[in-house]
Amino acid sequence: MALNAKVKWIEGLQFVGESGTGHAIIMDGDAQFGGQDTGMRPMELLLVGVGGCSGMDVISILKKKKQNVTSIEINVKGEKAESYPKKFTEINIEYIISGKDLSEDAVKRAIELSMDKYCSVKATIEGAAKINYSYKIINS
Amino acid sequence: MALNAKVKWIEGLQFVGESGTGHAIIMDGDAQFGGQDTGMRPMELLLVGVGGCSGMDVISILKKKKQNVTSIEINVKGEKAESYPKKFTEINIEYIISGKDLSEDAVKRAIELSMDKYCSVKATIEGAAKINYSYKIINS
Repeated sequence: MALNAKVKWIEGLQFVGESGTGHAIIMDGDAQFGGQDTGMRPMELLLVGVGGCSGMDVISILKKKKQNVTSIEINVKGEKAESYPKKFTEINIEYIISGKDLSEDAVKRAIELSMDKYCSVKATIEGAAKINYSYKIINS
Repeated sequence: MALNAKVKWIEGLQFVGESGTGHAIIMDGDAQFGGQDTGMRPMELLLVGVGGCSGMDVISILKKKKQNVTSIEINVKGEKAESYPKKFTEINIEYIISGKDLSEDAVKRAIELSMDKYCSVKATIEGAAKINYSYKIINS
């Protein structure tokens, strides 16, 4: 199965990215590299993408398990190599999952299934970056 | 050096991703998986990201080489594996670079430098996916 995107230069380091599903995003660079910070850095898209990908897995699995989830926040931190091409070498993902009477086993298993089996973004970037994760459960 | 992102669940498969530089994007899933297609798929972010990353390299290098670039379009196509976790196995990047009196050598070298040396996104995903590229130059 194929996915598509088109990226067009606007000005400076500002680019618009259009996805095959019809959505668009602005990317831009830091001022120190000639950009104007009008949009995300491309490397930030990888961190947002791995969080979104895994978040979709986790909420889908927890709903199937009839868990009463009220909030999911995922903090993603990526460490870049010092030398070019400055790829991500390590990515740390912290899940903060809130709900009512959440089963710790169910939450732990949902995250494991995403990380070990389902998350396409994680599987694409883990060739370069070691992926670590942790979680907090907040029951109210 | 570290980059950060925070991803929050909104509803259904809709998530907002906030980057450390202060920009936000909506992600959502296909209707067939319970989403509402209100934003990009997380896997599409990888394709947009590699195009944006390389585009920033290429325009920066071509400006240093005093090339008169009027337009850059980058088409990115990613092939996903059939089985879970359905990572990208191959990504094809097509650069269409327009300008006045563009030197083919300069354009070719700029793309090579991005792909072989500078592009952090490409370097992060090429552990999983074979990256191919081609280019067209349109001189007016």
